Amino acid sequence: MIRQPHCEVHPWEIRETELHLDVLAQMESVLALSNGHIGLRGNLDEGEPHGMPGTYLNGVFEARPLPYAEAAYGLPEAGQTVVNVTDGKLIRLLVDDEPFDVRYGELRSHRRVLDMRAGLLTREVEWCSPAGQAMRLRSVRLVSLVHRAVAAIRLEVQPLEAPARFVIQSELVANADLPTHGEQDPRAAAALRSPLVAEYAAQHGERVSLVHVTRVSGLRMAAAMDHLIDGPEGAAASTEAAGDLGRVTVTSDVPLGGTLRIVKLLAYGWSAERSRPAVLDQVEGALAEARHTGWDGLVAAQREALDDYWSRADVELDGDPELQQAVRFGLFHALQASARAERRAIPAKGLTGPGYDGHAFWDTETFVLPLLTYTAPAAARDALWWRHSTLPLALARAALLGLRGATFPWRTIRGEECSGYWPAGTAAFHVTADIADAVVRYLDATEDRVFERDAAVELLVESARLWVALGHHDPADGFRIDGVTGPDEYSAIADNNLYTNLMAQRNLLAAADVAERQAERAKRLGVDTAEIAAWRDAAGAMIVPWDERLRVHPQAEGFTRHEEWDFAATGHDAYPLLLHFPYFELYRKQVVKQPDLVLALHLRGDAFTDEEKARDFEYYDQRTVRDSSLSACTQAVIAAEVGHVELAYDYFGEAALMDLEDLEHNTRDGVHIASLAGAWLAAVAGLGGMRDHGGRLSFAPRLPEDLGRLAFRLCYRDRRLKVEVKHEGASYTLLAGEPLDVRHYGERVRLTRERAVTRPVPPAPERARPSQPPGREPRARQRVWAETA
Amino acid sequence: MIRQPHCEVHPWEIRETELHLDVLAQMESVLALSNGHIGLRGNLDEGEPHGMPGTYLNGVFEARPLPYAEAAYGLPEAGQTVVNVTDGKLIRLLVDDEPFDVRYGELRSHRRVLDMRAGLLTREVEWCSPAGQAMRLRSVRLVSLVHRAVAAIRLEVQPLEAPARFVIQSELVANADLPTHGEQDPRAAAALRSPLVAEYAAQHGERVSLVHVTRVSGLRMAAAMDHLIDGPEGAAASTEAAGDLGRVTVTSDVPLGGTLRIVKLLAYGWSAERSRPAVLDQVEGALAEARHTGWDGLVAAQREALDDYWSRADVELDGDPELQQAVRFGLFHALQASARAERRAIPAKGLTGPGYDGHAFWDTETFVLPLLTYTAPAAARDALWWRHSTLPLALARAALLGLRGATFPWRTIRGEECSGYWPAGTAAFHVTADIADAVVRYLDATEDRVFERDAAVELLVESARLWVALGHHDPADGFRIDGVTGPDEYSAIADNNLYTNLMAQRNLLAAADVAERQAERAKRLGVDTAEIAAWRDAAGAMIVPWDERLRVHPQAEGFTRHEEWDFAATGHDAYPLLLHFPYFELYRKQVVKQPDLVLALHLRGDAFTDEEKARDFEYYDQRTVRDSSLSACTQAVIAAEVGHVELAYDYFGEAALMDLEDLEHNTRDGVHIASLAGAWLAAVAGLGGMRDHGGRLSFAPRLPEDLGRLAFRLCYRDRRLKVEVKHEGASYTLLAGEPLDVRHYGERVRLTRERAVTRPVPPAPERARPSQPPGREPRARQRVWAETA
Repeated sequence: MIRQPHCEVHPWEIRETELHLDVLAQMESVLALSNGHIGLRGNLDEGEPHGMPGTYLNGVFEARPLPYAEAAYGLPEAGQTVVNVTDGKLIRLLVDDEPFDVRYGELRSHRRVLDMRAGLLTREVEWCSPAGQAMRLRSVRLVSLVHRAVAAIRLEVQPLEAPARFVIQSELVANADLPTHGEQDPRAAAALRSPLVAEYAAQHGERVSLVHVTRVSGLRMAAAMDHLIDGPEGAAASTEAAGDLGRVTVTSDVPLGGTLRIVKLLAYGWSAERSRPAVLDQVEGALAEARHTGWDGLVAAQREALDDYWSRADVELDGDPELQQAVRFGLFHALQASARAERRAIPAKGLTGPGYDGHAFWDTETFVLPLLTYTAPAAARDALWWRHSTLPLALARAALLGLRGATFPWRTIRGEECSGYWPAGTAAFHVTADIADAVVRYLDATEDRVFERDAAVELLVESARLWVALGHHDPADGFRIDGVTGPDEYSAIADNNLYTNLMAQRNLLAAADVAERQAERAKRLGVDTAEIAAWRDAAGAMIVPWDERLRVHPQAEGFTRHEEWDFAATGHDAYPLLLHFPYFELYRKQVVKQPDLVLALHLRGDAFTDEEKARDFEYYDQRTVRDSSLSACTQAVIAAEVGHVELAYDYFGEAALMDLEDLEHNTRDGVHIASLAGAWLAAVAGLGGMRDHGGRLSFAPRLPEDLGRLAFRLCYRDRRLKVEVKHEGASYTLLAGEPLDVRHYGERVRLTRERAVTRPVPPAPERARPSQPPGREPRARQRVWAETA
Repeated sequence: MIRQPHCEVHPWEIRETELHLDVLAQMESVLALSNGHIGLRGNLDEGEPHGMPGTYLNGVFEARPLPYAEAAYGLPEAGQTVVNVTDGKLIRLLVDDEPFDVRYGELRSHRRVLDMRAGLLTREVEWCSPAGQAMRLRSVRLVSLVHRAVAAIRLEVQPLEAPARFVIQSELVANADLPTHGEQDPRAAAALRSPLVAEYAAQHGERVSLVHVTRVSGLRMAAAMDHLIDGPEGAAASTEAAGDLGRVTVTSDVPLGGTLRIVKLLAYGWSAERSRPAVLDQVEGALAEARHTGWDGLVAAQREALDDYWSRADVELDGDPELQQAVRFGLFHALQASARAERRAIPAKGLTGPGYDGHAFWDTETFVLPLLTYTAPAAARDALWWRHSTLPLALARAALLGLRGATFPWRTIRGEECSGYWPAGTAAFHVTADIADAVVRYLDATEDRVFERDAAVELLVESARLWVALGHHDPADGFRIDGVTGPDEYSAIADNNLYTNLMAQRNLLAAADVAERQAERAKRLGVDTAEIAAWRDAAGAMIVPWDERLRVHPQAEGFTRHEEWDFAATGHDAYPLLLHFPYFELYRKQVVKQPDLVLALHLRGDAFTDEEKARDFEYYDQRTVRDSSLSACTQAVIAAEVGHVELAYDYFGEAALMDLEDLEHNTRDGVHIASLAGAWLAAVAGLGGMRDHGGRLSFAPRLPEDLGRLAFRLCYRDRRLKVEVKHEGASYTLLAGEPLDVRHYGERVRLTRERAVTRPVPPAPERARPSQPPGREPRARQRVWAETA
């Protein structure tokens, strides 16, 4: 690869062949392990050096006051910030009394491999201490996808040239100091110092448990560790536990050829309500279960869980090994972020770092849930259950704002709005439509009538109510939604944002449909025929702005009359623009941070003609700077649809390599789950041309010149599909389930278990490649790969 | 009066006949004395009880960080807050060892009178101590309009029933504790604790000087006092001075019939740059001058200065004594705020309280400077010189924002933008046009070519440059100014705010004119013919939105399509709306805090037809809630113009009585200088129908039924005019200066010194009185006065 000379390309592994301290923090994010409940950054076993130590539990946050220079009604008063919880990864090592530290002595070799089929992070080090003692260290780390509360590390050390005295200190450490950066980037997280108050510490044999409570938010968490020690005769262990520290110390004189090995089992749990004994029992129970399963059992179960996932989710690409690796990396992290989140949020960074304060955004529903819906539908359902669990807060927020229905937060951990900047937070009401859209997609793709009855009705009804409260019928115009902010963060507070209006329209119609299908539930929510009629009315009269002069859709009313951004005068170092220009200037000009209108072309593709899509895409691509990681994937999807296949390929590459190449220079704070999931969208909805408007599955695949083959799998209404695209044609295979009709370029194709169906791929329409703002063109994928091949 | 049973109406005095502790803070603002350099709140001599102790020096502020929940480029990092400086008003009194405190013992009578002709605040108290010692205290206080650095107090005490031992402690106190209010009202000031660092204290005889430096902003201030003591034989004085306290103690055994009298002379000065000895010498010099002038001399000079002012500024009203008093109260405070400001800001509260952090806003130029321009033009010129002195900051701010020219701050003390809420601060670019408008008005009214050459060219050129940078020519539309905030704070970030566009247009044309008149100066600023042409181009193509369907002007593009505010569902206790609704909700609906379009009807009346004015006024009056004190005066002006004379009278009453009746419940924080000056506008531009478009003075007077006569005076181009309006006709008298043409209802009238010219007043057009939002109607003036007569 170009930017990571220390890494090797491999279809199933992330291979770091040397340790480069300048990208330590980035690699900690890339190599982070998580199951959606526990997250361990890829910190070195010995703790230091580090970029950013990080251990996270989904939902454990600290509250902090949100300050304002000028107060105003309705501004959230408290923020929520993810907490670096008790670190159980830490295993320090002394070699003949000298601490193992790669910065000292001689690091002969250092290799780390994240195996995406095994779900393991392995490390192999050869190091010679300053005093000349050479040794080999091997560690294997996992966060179990099967045992939700469990992580485990196997670490072994061997002397290489002479007998050695090893001391292993395996620890639980709370309130570790975090590095602070004197940065002004508003996207960085607020650092919290010592957020955990020690409540309890216990030890028994090589087992230690620590219980802490977050200082302000009052969440109780427990971490526990136990150890299996295997070393030469005479190895001895001692244990201590108090306050913020638990430590098991193993000392051993290891002869040449001998090995000292420990397996460290970790368990984590937390609760906002349960008592100390209850939380403690929970983690000690999990630990007992892990001990019972044993290291080999944990490893085997991990492999099994991942085999199952890949059989449902894998995307294969022939002709671009780098992109092949990156797409699987994205799928792997999407799974890690969600697999066992179980009715907790899926944060924008997963549990890989403290970026964005650990908050979840609308990214989840719009970029991550499509992937999960078609590859791991139970995880998608759980994520939507989480939103459902926050409905009381969303209803209360709407009421506080003088509205009806639900307004879901722009950013949150537990469900409360945590955005202290209302023009891009509170005013971004589209979040609520995005959630409704994810509900509709999930229902269409799964026909899950239980979820429909128990959660979807309420989510759709309360979200539809918002639009009726927020918009109004203008006698001359139609149904208007004024003064709101769409997805593009370089615009705000605009009238009739087209994306918002079209997504609200879908929400209103879906609510009307579901209220009729689930009449009993709807009635309990107070829905009557008049309300349903009002929803259909508003949807029917919804305004869709159109600029007749330019023959494009304005992103919002007036947008296309705004001044053009002076790209020629904008230096390459002026990006991201938000760090160099005030918001008012970004808002009032035709400069787009991330697809807004173009995202509508994707999600509401049913509302546009092909000609409109082509013109709109071209217009907005010229004005989109992609200062958001939520850009390239959507541009890939629409570029492919309107015929710019090579451009789609370039955008696909950017989305997929966001973190492996640290394209936004902030992977250190965690990987970009939505962009990584977006790589799947670029492959499946982009090159694969998959759409699901109105619950009708359709495909219009096409490949860039350099890719010989694209294959992907889908779960759909209790069926399993495989789609394989080559230049000459696409074949559709029903792997499991009842026969199914899909569409290939508009043609109905019936899929049965008997045989694959193959159809030719028509040529893409000939169109000139649109330009992008100077310097903001995506890197040409073809050339990149040619250079590095 | 209805709301102030403790006050009497008097044409030239504010008479408080009893002390009511519940309105103590309000009365401290009402009875504040100031000369624009020094401000003393109307605190009781003995300091306590108090609502809010306050002593201010124009320009002395403390810097404080402005916090943000989410940082962004271009947000001001430091705020400025007016500082309560060393208190020299304080004169404590012990009566036979018991402190004089009106809350204890028996308060037999308490009377305070603010004499607006004399410029004196007098107080007369009869009090009997808890131990039964009765005494009379008289004090007279002034802040000299003639000696800028000087204030003085004469205080005398007499035993009433038995000889008494009096101890007078006359003090200078720095860093006095301020009361804190647990309020959430964003308009309240940020309190600062102990902002002054003691630097020096000196004493000599009964003279004390204290020098302090503000902790962060580093401004050096000095306060000094000296005393003239006149008492029975045996009266003795002692002096002490250190740190935050200077004290002169006078003890005297006063026989029945005897009097102990002290005159306390005060001097204040400050500097951002000068040394301690220099600042000290400055105040001690001022003190020497005051001593030399003596008490009687100070009082006489004060009277003389005010006689001169009233001869230029007085407004007479027959038929409404309450309003007569209120108009003079407004004129008095407008003078106090500006008389000796001398190239410092005129804050929104003058120097009468800490409201709005002591900041100056565009109010100054738009509401206060018209009054000063026509009554005290030198004060208007000085205020504009202050703006000129801040040009470097305004140019730097524009550059920081990526613009050209000058962007003047929304709120400031020294010139830096201090608004931490950019949608209503930074985006309110009209501030810059308002300043240009005040410059144009001043030049038109004075023909001051020195100011034009030395300050106006630069102010007009740099402000014109802003508009060219901020707006753009749209091929289809014209010159657009998008994404800005107009005067109405219940709207923000709108395209083509009509007020802003029209004021920018005036600014551009005025800059072109002045650059041609003052070609040499303009050339030095880099102005060439191409730039002048660009200004005229932009002005000529300026967009003025129009709603053809409703046949009214939208306040900004799209405004009239926005949802109507649901006034029926808005309770009376929900005002001001900003305390009960989020900004996004206010912004997206047709609800107006203060005139915006209607202010354009006044200031750019030359751009509208009579019919448009009438329709626009009616439309917006129905939607204006007057949650700002900058509302009623403008509504009065346009109501009068379009023929709603009785409504104009009601609005006039509201503007004038803003503080005497505490209509917005925050007079405690200081009086509303702009509303008080607005009362003059309501009288002169409203009932008097005075306009000055294009430097052409015109009148179209009309009186409400209950007023028998309105008379006002004007300074204009070295002339002095008097206008007297009665129902049957208006007469114009040239009191001084060369002959002058004015217009009366469009008819040219030539005024000479020979005789007054009288013209009949035509009847107002018959129009139905427009409605206001329910519960937001102005109090009917006629009925009010009838009730209280």
